Amino acid sequence: MISVEEARGRILAAFRPTPAEIVALAEAWNRVTAAPVLARLTQPPADVSAMDGYALRAADGTLGTTLRVIGSAPAGHPFDGGVGPGEAVRIFTGSVVPPGADAILLQEDATRDGDSVRANEAVTAKRHIRRAGQDFAAGDVVVAAGRRMTARDVGLAAAANHPWISVHRRPRVAILATGDEIALPGEPIPPGGIVSSNSHALAALVRAAGGDPVVLPVARDEVAVIAATADAVGGMDLLVTTGGASVGDHDLVIEGLRQRGMTLDFWQIAMRPGKPLLFGQLGAVPVLGLPGNPVSALVCGVLFLVPAISRLLGLPGEPPATEPAILGARLAANDHRADHLRATLTRGPQNQAIATPFPVQDSAMLQRLARADALILRAPHAQALPEGAEVRVIRLEAHGI
Amino acid sequence: MISVEEARGRILAAFRPTPAEIVALAEAWNRVTAAPVLARLTQPPADVSAMDGYALRAADGTLGTTLRVIGSAPAGHPFDGGVGPGEAVRIFTGSVVPPGADAILLQEDATRDGDSVRANEAVTAKRHIRRAGQDFAAGDVVVAAGRRMTARDVGLAAAANHPWISVHRRPRVAILATGDEIALPGEPIPPGGIVSSNSHALAALVRAAGGDPVVLPVARDEVAVIAATADAVGGMDLLVTTGGASVGDHDLVIEGLRQRGMTLDFWQIAMRPGKPLLFGQLGAVPVLGLPGNPVSALVCGVLFLVPAISRLLGLPGEPPATEPAILGARLAANDHRADHLRATLTRGPQNQAIATPFPVQDSAMLQRLARADALILRAPHAQALPEGAEVRVIRLEAHGI
Repeated sequence: MISVEEARGRILAAFRPTPAEIVALAEAWNRVTAAPVLARLTQPPADVSAMDGYALRAADGTLGTTLRVIGSAPAGHPFDGGVGPGEAVRIFTGSVVPPGADAILLQEDATRDGDSVRANEAVTAKRHIRRAGQDFAAGDVVVAAGRRMTARDVGLAAAANHPWISVHRRPRVAILATGDEIALPGEPIPPGGIVSSNSHALAALVRAAGGDPVVLPVARDEVAVIAATADAVGGMDLLVTTGGASVGDHDLVIEGLRQRGMTLDFWQIAMRPGKPLLFGQLGAVPVLGLPGNPVSALVCGVLFLVPAISRLLGLPGEPPATEPAILGARLAANDHRADHLRATLTRGPQNQAIATPFPVQDSAMLQRLARADALILRAPHAQALPEGAEVRVIRLEAHGI
Repeated sequence: MISVEEARGRILAAFRPTPAEIVALAEAWNRVTAAPVLARLTQPPADVSAMDGYALRAADGTLGTTLRVIGSAPAGHPFDGGVGPGEAVRIFTGSVVPPGADAILLQEDATRDGDSVRANEAVTAKRHIRRAGQDFAAGDVVVAAGRRMTARDVGLAAAANHPWISVHRRPRVAILATGDEIALPGEPIPPGGIVSSNSHALAALVRAAGGDPVVLPVARDEVAVIAATADAVGGMDLLVTTGGASVGDHDLVIEGLRQRGMTLDFWQIAMRPGKPLLFGQLGAVPVLGLPGNPVSALVCGVLFLVPAISRLLGLPGEPPATEPAILGARLAANDHRADHLRATLTRGPQNQAIATPFPVQDSAMLQRLARADALILRAPHAQALPEGAEVRVIRLEAHGI
C-alpha cells in the first residue's frame, strides 16, 4: 500500500493543462486564464476629477476669490479649450480636467451666481485629481495567467478593454458507474439493487471543481460492456470509474479496460475510507477508478479528483486546503491507514472552530457524510488525542463539495 | 446618513424567495432546494454485506469449522433461498444477506476448496452486516428545504431516488450602467470616455451569488432613455443600476425611473467606499442603485446585492461572513463612516491570518481591489489600532467575488 501523498503525486504527474479557448468576457467568471491579460489602454486615460466641482488654476483658488465660469465638462464630454487665469470650468466626477487647470474647487465649497463662482474654501493643487495611469497603464498585466477569474478580475479585464478572454478549456470528465445492482434515480430498481448515487455526486464534484462532466450509462458487470466504454472516452481529459476496483471477484473494470489497452498502476492506498484506487492510462486518457462505496468515492474525489481537475485547468493542483480546529471529542490512536473522519464544525467561546467526529464512521452512510461539515485528517499511526487537542480539517462545503 | 446595517435591513425586507421550479438532478448542484427532499426508499433496502466473503449462521462460524457452499449472491443478484445449519453462501460487498444467515466470514479469513469453505477465524454475529435502513428510511428528510445543494447532497438525493429536484428559480437580475462617457469593451470609446467595467463585474457577482444576470445596453445620460429601461425590466426580480446616483447634476437615473412610477428610498449611507446608494421600487421590481465608481460598486455589491440575491434564493440573506485577522500595519482612527479597507492576507508564524491594508485606498483603483484578498471592516468612529491588533475581515475570493 502507498500513501495518500504518493498516490496524489503519481496521479498529478499524468495531467497537463487543457488547451486554451476564447470566451466572451461575460462568460469568463470562474474560468482560468490561459494567458496574461494586458491592459489595452491607460486608466484613467487623462487626468480626471475625482469629485463634482470646478476645475481652475491652483494659484487662483484662494479663499473668497471669484472666477468666471467659461464652460462645462460633463463626464464623456471634455471641455473644448483651456482654463486661463481667473477662469473656471464646471466639472464632474470622471470628467477630464481641461488643459491649464490643476486644482478642483469642490461643489460644496462653491457658491455659483450666473457665470461666476466664488470659492468658500482655498483649493490645493492636484488634490481631487486622479492622474492618468493611476489605476493601470497600457501594457500592464492586469490579470495573470493561471488565475481563476473573480468578479473583480472580470471588471478589471473589462476596464482594460478586453471583450474576449483566453482561458483553459473546461476539462471533460467522463464518469462510468458499473454494477448489475444499480439503477439511475427514477428507473426500475433490480431485485436487491440500489439507486446509483455516485454518477451524479461525482458529476457535481466535477462541476464544482470547474470541469464538464459527461455521465456515461451504467455499465453492467460484463467485461465486454465495460470494454466498449473505451470507445466513448476519446477526446475526454479523464475517465472516472466507480465500483469494480476491489480485490474481489468483480474486478471487471480492470479486465474490461485492459482488453482495450489500458496500462495499469493499480494501488492499494493506505487510507480510510477508500483503499482500492485504480489509476491507469487508456490511450491518451487517464483513468481514475474510485471505490464503489459512495462515501469512499466522494472522499477519494476530494483528495484525488479535484486536484487532478485543478491541474487540467492550469492551476497548481494542490491538495485540498486544510485549516486548524479543536477536537470536540477524544480520538483513539490510528492504525497504518490515513483516516478522514466525518465531523461537525461548531464555534467555541473564542470563536475557534471545534471539530467533533461522528461516533460511527461507517463508510456506507451517505447521509452522515452529507451532514458533515469537515473531514478530520488523521495521519497513519497518529497517537490518541484528548478532547481539546488541535487537528487539521478539510472544510467540505467550500467550493460546493 | 444611515448605517450599513440599517440600509441592508431595509433592502432585505423588500425581497421574498423566488417561486420553485423543477430541475433534473444533474442540474441541481449549487441550486437552493424549495422543498425538503424525502427518501423514497430505505437504504440499504435489506440487510447487506459490508465485505466480500461468505454469509452463514453465526453459531456455525467457529474457528476451523468447514461449511458447504450452497450458492453465490453477487451484488444485484440475491441468492434464491435461505442458509441452513452447516451452509454458507458466497457474498460480496453490497449483496443482500440471505435469510437464515446472520454473520459474515471474511474472504481473507476463509479457505475455499470446491464446494466447501473453512473458517480460519471465528465470526461475530451481525458484524460486517449493514442493517436495512442504516443510512436512511423511506420518508426521512435527506435534504432540507432552503439548502444550497452540495455534491454530497446531490448524491444523497440520487440515493433517495429523486430524478427531479424542486429548487428556487434563479433570480433574474437586470443590470443597467448609465453614462455618456462609457463604452463596452472592444467598442469605440468616446472622447474622454472610459470602458465600462461595472456591468460585467456586477454580472459576475450576480452569477457568483447564484443569480442570472441580464445586462442591459448602456443608457446615455438622457432622462427619456433611462425611463425607457422601465419597459425592459418586467419579470425581473431586481434592477441594479450603476452611476448617476450621486447628489450632483447627473441624477438622471432617479429622474428617469421616477417618471415611470418608481417610489424612492434614497439614501446616503455612512460608509466608504460607497455613500450614495439608491433603493426604490419600480412596480413589482426592486431597484438597487450602486455608485458608478467601480470599487464602490463592487464593495456595495458584496454588502447589499449578494445578500439580496441570497434572500431571493430562499437563503437567509445574511451579511457577508467575516473572520478574525491580525493587523499588519497600524490604523488611524476612523471618522463617522464605516470603512472597508482593501488589504492583503498573509499567514503569520502561528498560521494566523495577517491583514495589511494598502497604504492608498483610492476608490477608483480597480486593480488595487482585484489584488486585495480581503476588506478590513472599520466601524464608524473606531479608535486607532496598533499593528498586531485584531480586526474582522471579509475574505473576497470566497464564492468567486
